[in-house]
Amino acid sequence: MQLPSCYLFERLSEPQKDRIAAITLEKEIRKGEWLFQEGQEAKRLFLLRKGTVELVTLVNDSIEIPITIVRSTGGCFGIGALVEPYRYSLSARCTDDSTLLVINQADIKELIRTDSDLGCTIMTNLAQKLLDRLKETRQESKIHINTLIKSAAFS
Amino acid sequence: MQLPSCYLFERLSEPQKDRIAAITLEKEIRKGEWLFQEGQEAKRLFLLRKGTVELVTLVNDSIEIPITIVRSTGGCFGIGALVEPYRYSLSARCTDDSTLLVINQADIKELIRTDSDLGCTIMTNLAQKLLDRLKETRQESKIHINTLIKSAAFS
Repeated sequence: MQLPSCYLFERLSEPQKDRIAAITLEKEIRKGEWLFQEGQEAKRLFLLRKGTVELVTLVNDSIEIPITIVRSTGGCFGIGALVEPYRYSLSARCTDDSTLLVINQADIKELIRTDSDLGCTIMTNLAQKLLDRLKETRQESKIHINTLIKSAAFS
Repeated sequence: MQLPSCYLFERLSEPQKDRIAAITLEKEIRKGEWLFQEGQEAKRLFLLRKGTVELVTLVNDSIEIPITIVRSTGGCFGIGALVEPYRYSLSARCTDDSTLLVINQADIKELIRTDSDLGCTIMTNLAQKLLDRLKETRQESKIHINTLIKSAAFS
């Protein structure tokens, strides 16, 4: 299998990518199907081959917020499968019929354990992406706070 | 030098910790001094030995929000020094006379490059911490959004 380009696999060598491809399975998912729920044990890491997946979080019982819409080939989600406590931090739903690449948590964990060079590259890529997301999320918080300050000033 | 306990160094072997200690310098900082500003090149990673450091971000020209107060020995900040683009994402100010441990970005980068087992462990620890912070920050966003929803309902 040819792995799609994904931020997690940047700077890996071709043999390292082949080792990841060897533990990757392709799966068809129907529109509307949930892949996992926030808080569940993260048993699988996903890459999008084709289709659309929406990642959401619940604000309260009736309101969910979309956090990301994964549309591009190689878009990756379910990264809770890469770090302790191995829990999904968001819920994922297919919003189109989709083709996914699936990597079992136990398989990628074993690959990282036995090839620390591969592990160091993947984990560095992951940390970089998470730091970017953290900055974006803080930026959104600032916008909400600014809105609150302005609405308080006019109330 | 004896390294204080820090989440970044969890699961490292004693010889690996010694290699980090060998590139670590101790520095005294006076109350009120700024260590770095949001957006600056992240040339150094810091660990707290003694004292208090406040990490803040600016909402606008006149309002800053405290993000974290580092009080405990081994508390670590300036993690922008560990991942590209090597920029600080927050500003740091000593709020008490403090003793800091300082690691140059170039030195830790070289250590990670030459010891991928050490690199994999540190980067896994970092990714885990960042994912935790991301969940906390999303949680705070939900609180702000809930406040906005409630204030809209009563306005």
